[in-house]
Amino acid sequence: MNYLITGATGFVGTHFIRDLKSRGHTIHGIGTHVPSPSGELAGIGFHSMSLMDYKSLHTLLKDIQPDQIVHLASASSVAASWESPNACFVNNTNIFLNLVEAVRELKLRCRVLSVGSSEEYGVLTEKDVPIREDHSLAPASPYAVARVAQEQLSQVYSRGYGLDIVCTRSFNHIGPGQSERFVVSSFVKQAVAVSRKQQKEIFVGRIDIVRDFIDVRDVIQAYAVILEKGKPGQVYNVCTGKGHSLQDVLEHICRRLDIPMAAKTKDALLRPVENRMIVGENAQLRALGFQPQYDLSKSLDDMIAWWQNQISA
Amino acid sequence: MNYLITGATGFVGTHFIRDLKSRGHTIHGIGTHVPSPSGELAGIGFHSMSLMDYKSLHTLLKDIQPDQIVHLASASSVAASWESPNACFVNNTNIFLNLVEAVRELKLRCRVLSVGSSEEYGVLTEKDVPIREDHSLAPASPYAVARVAQEQLSQVYSRGYGLDIVCTRSFNHIGPGQSERFVVSSFVKQAVAVSRKQQKEIFVGRIDIVRDFIDVRDVIQAYAVILEKGKPGQVYNVCTGKGHSLQDVLEHICRRLDIPMAAKTKDALLRPVENRMIVGENAQLRALGFQPQYDLSKSLDDMIAWWQNQISA
Repeated sequence: MNYLITGATGFVGTHFIRDLKSRGHTIHGIGTHVPSPSGELAGIGFHSMSLMDYKSLHTLLKDIQPDQIVHLASASSVAASWESPNACFVNNTNIFLNLVEAVRELKLRCRVLSVGSSEEYGVLTEKDVPIREDHSLAPASPYAVARVAQEQLSQVYSRGYGLDIVCTRSFNHIGPGQSERFVVSSFVKQAVAVSRKQQKEIFVGRIDIVRDFIDVRDVIQAYAVILEKGKPGQVYNVCTGKGHSLQDVLEHICRRLDIPMAAKTKDALLRPVENRMIVGENAQLRALGFQPQYDLSKSLDDMIAWWQNQISA
Repeated sequence: MNYLITGATGFVGTHFIRDLKSRGHTIHGIGTHVPSPSGELAGIGFHSMSLMDYKSLHTLLKDIQPDQIVHLASASSVAASWESPNACFVNNTNIFLNLVEAVRELKLRCRVLSVGSSEEYGVLTEKDVPIREDHSLAPASPYAVARVAQEQLSQVYSRGYGLDIVCTRSFNHIGPGQSERFVVSSFVKQAVAVSRKQQKEIFVGRIDIVRDFIDVRDVIQAYAVILEKGKPGQVYNVCTGKGHSLQDVLEHICRRLDIPMAAKTKDALLRPVENRMIVGENAQLRALGFQPQYDLSKSLDDMIAWWQNQISA
């Protein structure tokens, strides 16, 4: 099978490509960063370009003629979207629109995976969770609006133009290799630094919020199963079905590292609107054959080991 | 009061500016077409620029410091959005995002009118109409997706950043001066041509569809009342509350012109997904003091007179 991966140098992209390579597929990747020739992306067809460059994208798709497009490229930080809403919107919705528009113009017969977000559901209460895919969407951040628009464009391209698009609403990712711009990876990195006496406290935003954290290695298993068996036009929650508060996550990390839980709230880490609780129901995904392999404890252990390796002692 | 009107050279823009001038306001207009110096826009501060040019927009807003921004600029044809989805999206959602982002960055204290569309509701059935503002949104065309994204961005900028934005979902406009790209104006123009023996038949798409047609002069009355009394962050249906099929509209026009109703379906006028019925409830708008002044018959008569004047005999 001939795969095209956007966001190839990103967190999910590198994990996804490693998995595809092990299964012997032809792989092309698009990214804005140039990958190391000795890293995960060695040996794939790598194309350094912006997805906002429609003409280059069109030419590339025409050349490659992919069977599957896994669209992982995204400005996926909710916090960053409050700082730069315009950049967030363009680098989610507009890049996706360019991609499906090129597929439509070229009449490519391929399946497209459109990655969305649990943030699309908006501010939920205890009674709403675990949330099902048929729940109404009420995006409460610039990032969430961008993802809803992407999903609605997927529906229009699927129903109106007959493109084969499968959609996800993916919940919070964790796992080794994640950027410290994301909260759990930031906690682990800071805790490792505290354990090495390199910093005294762990800076946090609100830690009473509850999220459904899914390991990136389970995310790629989910995407593979959705690409293989998902129904065209359908939206799938990609989640574990279990919620954990950031407080619980932080306590677990500190216990593992045998350090006191010295959390300090930093105003800059608070957001204009905060969703207190997001936990998903994954019955549709399990019905396709998905089974999560990583529980929270295993993910955090692997993240601790990864950061211990990254930060020099 | 200091007004800035985007889409100043458009259908609603020219009507809106004529009304503001009669009430003695200071008016700036932004448009991409250069207006005639002797037309409706004579005497206002006119700025020819694209709203995609963020830097120029930012500079202009800083200079003007408007009290009210009436954002009428839009690529508002549903049919055109199926032809050029990308252009439609950029010229609705991205231009709006640029506008509110400039207001946010400059910390302007002004009210913004965000115009949305009845198309946001998607495909409705008899039991859904007249539709209220709390009905779920299910956009079924590229244009509709772009309008939903604009409205959701309005909510995020209103709740997250504290901007003063009032929103509409405006139903199908009619009235003298409307472009023939829109269905009723096309019918009138063609019927006038038939009455003058310049063409034999009237080309149509589906005419069993029902719409809530509101005269542009009532639209500007509605926008004025929403700008004056609307609640920040609120969404208002701008409509008459009455539905008419395109068949009824066409029959009325032909009767008035005393010509046979010779309609011919043209495949190019059919759309990939067609909403059969859109009729709105306007209780919220009436509660602000709005009273429609033009019924369908009066609007069509004025449109016939306008096209008779435009088309040389």
